Amino acid sequence: MNFDTLFQNQIDDLKKEGNYRYFAELERKCGKFPRAANHVDGEKREVTVWCSNDYLGMGQHPKVVDAMCEAVRRTGAGAGGTRNISGTNHDHLLLEKELADLHGKEAALIFTSGYVSNWSSLSTLGSRLENCVILSDAGNHASMIEGIRHSKARKVIWKHNDVADLEEKLRAIPANFPKIVAFESVYSMDGDIAPIKAIVEMAEKYGAMTYIDEVHAVGMYGARGGGVSEELGLAHRITLIEGTLGKAFGCVGGYITGSVALCDFIRSFASGFIFTTALPPAVAAAARTSIAHLKVSSVEREGQRRQVARLRAALDHQGIPHMSNDSHIVPVMIGDPVKTKMLADHLMDVWGIYVQPINYPTVPKGTERLRFTPSPLHTDADIDYLISALTFLWKQCAISHSVNVA
Amino acid sequence: MNFDTLFQNQIDDLKKEGNYRYFAELERKCGKFPRAANHVDGEKREVTVWCSNDYLGMGQHPKVVDAMCEAVRRTGAGAGGTRNISGTNHDHLLLEKELADLHGKEAALIFTSGYVSNWSSLSTLGSRLENCVILSDAGNHASMIEGIRHSKARKVIWKHNDVADLEEKLRAIPANFPKIVAFESVYSMDGDIAPIKAIVEMAEKYGAMTYIDEVHAVGMYGARGGGVSEELGLAHRITLIEGTLGKAFGCVGGYITGSVALCDFIRSFASGFIFTTALPPAVAAAARTSIAHLKVSSVEREGQRRQVARLRAALDHQGIPHMSNDSHIVPVMIGDPVKTKMLADHLMDVWGIYVQPINYPTVPKGTERLRFTPSPLHTDADIDYLISALTFLWKQCAISHSVNVA
Repeated sequence: MNFDTLFQNQIDDLKKEGNYRYFAELERKCGKFPRAANHVDGEKREVTVWCSNDYLGMGQHPKVVDAMCEAVRRTGAGAGGTRNISGTNHDHLLLEKELADLHGKEAALIFTSGYVSNWSSLSTLGSRLENCVILSDAGNHASMIEGIRHSKARKVIWKHNDVADLEEKLRAIPANFPKIVAFESVYSMDGDIAPIKAIVEMAEKYGAMTYIDEVHAVGMYGARGGGVSEELGLAHRITLIEGTLGKAFGCVGGYITGSVALCDFIRSFASGFIFTTALPPAVAAAARTSIAHLKVSSVEREGQRRQVARLRAALDHQGIPHMSNDSHIVPVMIGDPVKTKMLADHLMDVWGIYVQPINYPTVPKGTERLRFTPSPLHTDADIDYLISALTFLWKQCAISHSVNVA
Repeated sequence: MNFDTLFQNQIDDLKKEGNYRYFAELERKCGKFPRAANHVDGEKREVTVWCSNDYLGMGQHPKVVDAMCEAVRRTGAGAGGTRNISGTNHDHLLLEKELADLHGKEAALIFTSGYVSNWSSLSTLGSRLENCVILSDAGNHASMIEGIRHSKARKVIWKHNDVADLEEKLRAIPANFPKIVAFESVYSMDGDIAPIKAIVEMAEKYGAMTYIDEVHAVGMYGARGGGVSEELGLAHRITLIEGTLGKAFGCVGGYITGSVALCDFIRSFASGFIFTTALPPAVAAAARTSIAHLKVSSVEREGQRRQVARLRAALDHQGIPHMSNDSHIVPVMIGDPVKTKMLADHLMDVWGIYVQPINYPTVPKGTERLRFTPSPLHTDADIDYLISALTFLWKQCAISHSVNVA
């Protein structure tokens, strides 16, 4: 049996659909964000990155860089083992303490990635709580979906951000069954924000625990960067807050926070936590420095908000349709994978503007888009230049100025 | 419903069984491995680590430490996005090239961890190849088991390292079904090595693809550290070689190597690869430096072999039973979780020797053990001291000198 042929056939299908992915090869330049070098055919040239999830540019913050280097020189490159077998370092515990404090929780637990934190936590909760039912928002991230699926618990999907539908589904489940309401605060691709208060109240009414993914919010929302749940004063009413160290905090890794019993439960039973090498202590030290900085500094958050508003206003002025939302994510809908890639290629090749075409499976087919994430480090001139390029393209390509972006 | 009570009940059960895990809090000291500081109740003191998977001490190698710091200062702390959305860095591609070369394969693909590389690759292969049957060695690691389970493909478990049983199982599967024989080279907890040649020949006979996990072998076996498959000259006959950057290479992360079509297939379809922030470029740079060093330096491998042999000989001399195997892993069986923990606590508290008690679910209940991993950096005096401690304990505790350790 020729396995390569089996693989190649499926890759060819992706190519036919326009869904095959070409990764842009970058060289991040510490201190120059959002500028980076783009490698193409052995040549490299400077581009401006418009689609990073290092939302605040903290990955290059001098304090973060210094903390990481200091810890590498102090502890070495890796952790040396799983958390259980020689891999728990003092830096991990300091980070977990910082995270618990960030969300006003008793405890925290770190994972190798946000993906693994969602997958491990939901699969452990769903599989170990007898008769557990997980009520999952229809827009939830792949890592949550896979975790729920892996748990083999009963899954009930409620309509995206629809609290009435959530109530209907909650009501139909026996009162004595453990129920978990799982949702996100800021949805990555549409940038919309969940009606968290209403969801929490509904969960409380039916005795369900709440599981919120704040990966696209931590560092950026709330007075100390504790996410939308902090901004709304709701963190203490949410059972489990999950977040990432890889986006606004500029590093890598994921975490959960909650009660001591909850974190100890996941720590003790989650396969994806137990059987894996711990994060490098240096990553933990860098992340902790980033979190601690954003607890007391609002400059980055304010700068981001200002540049997001400026980009939106400029798009509106040019009549370039973008999805309206209350977050820092600015999706410009194209609705076709081939056209989206063509636009992105042109922006990169001609204008030195890098925005990755977003296609299936990251978004549903037919909703392909360009997704811009302005940071505090994008200057007004960067925005003006981007708008010039988009305006030019929208005129050239006769892309609809009236796409339905509700 | 009180969720904390549900969690606490299960934790209490673990405690009753003696299977509750207490993590030792360490501070690795770059340049002092295997010495580390152990934190207990706010105090810290120096201990010797005897259970690290930084098998060769590469996590503190000056070249690796320098490469990591250089890359942090050059690129910043994190990758800034998923591999698809602004997260692919030049350092990632250099690492993938280094890994492909290490195993003599066309291509490689890196993941956030070895766990994720196994889980993602097996779940993607199993779910996307129609009628796929995965033949899994009974001793396979949790990450492989979970990946296979997640794929929902038909799973057939063959007896650990038993090629006759593998053949029987292969023969029973229709010839036109894609078959994957999944196994490890060095098994982590018993330290035994698979009969790779016989397995590969059997897979070839039945047209199955081979998937080998070499995480406990890369860096340490083969003239260039390409694992047992390199040592035996079999790498080119194995379809997929999986490995880790987190053990002998001293960093963090996982990878697969294989044909271009295979790696592109996993890259294009694996949820755990797609929807997660890429490894920090600095980790990639550190890992590449470590791999490149071990391709040309045998000092570390030779030193490890010498100290492993020395420890085994000394154990034999004292009549302390250990599992016989051909690897660098020295398991001393105790067979009871409470007794194992008691011994480990005594070694730590009285002797400053840190060896984590290994219990369920890492090993089956009743096979609890102390697992020693001598490195080239453990001195003869370290071994003599360890032997003194174990000899004392074995006399004190009247632990059997004739446990069946076949």
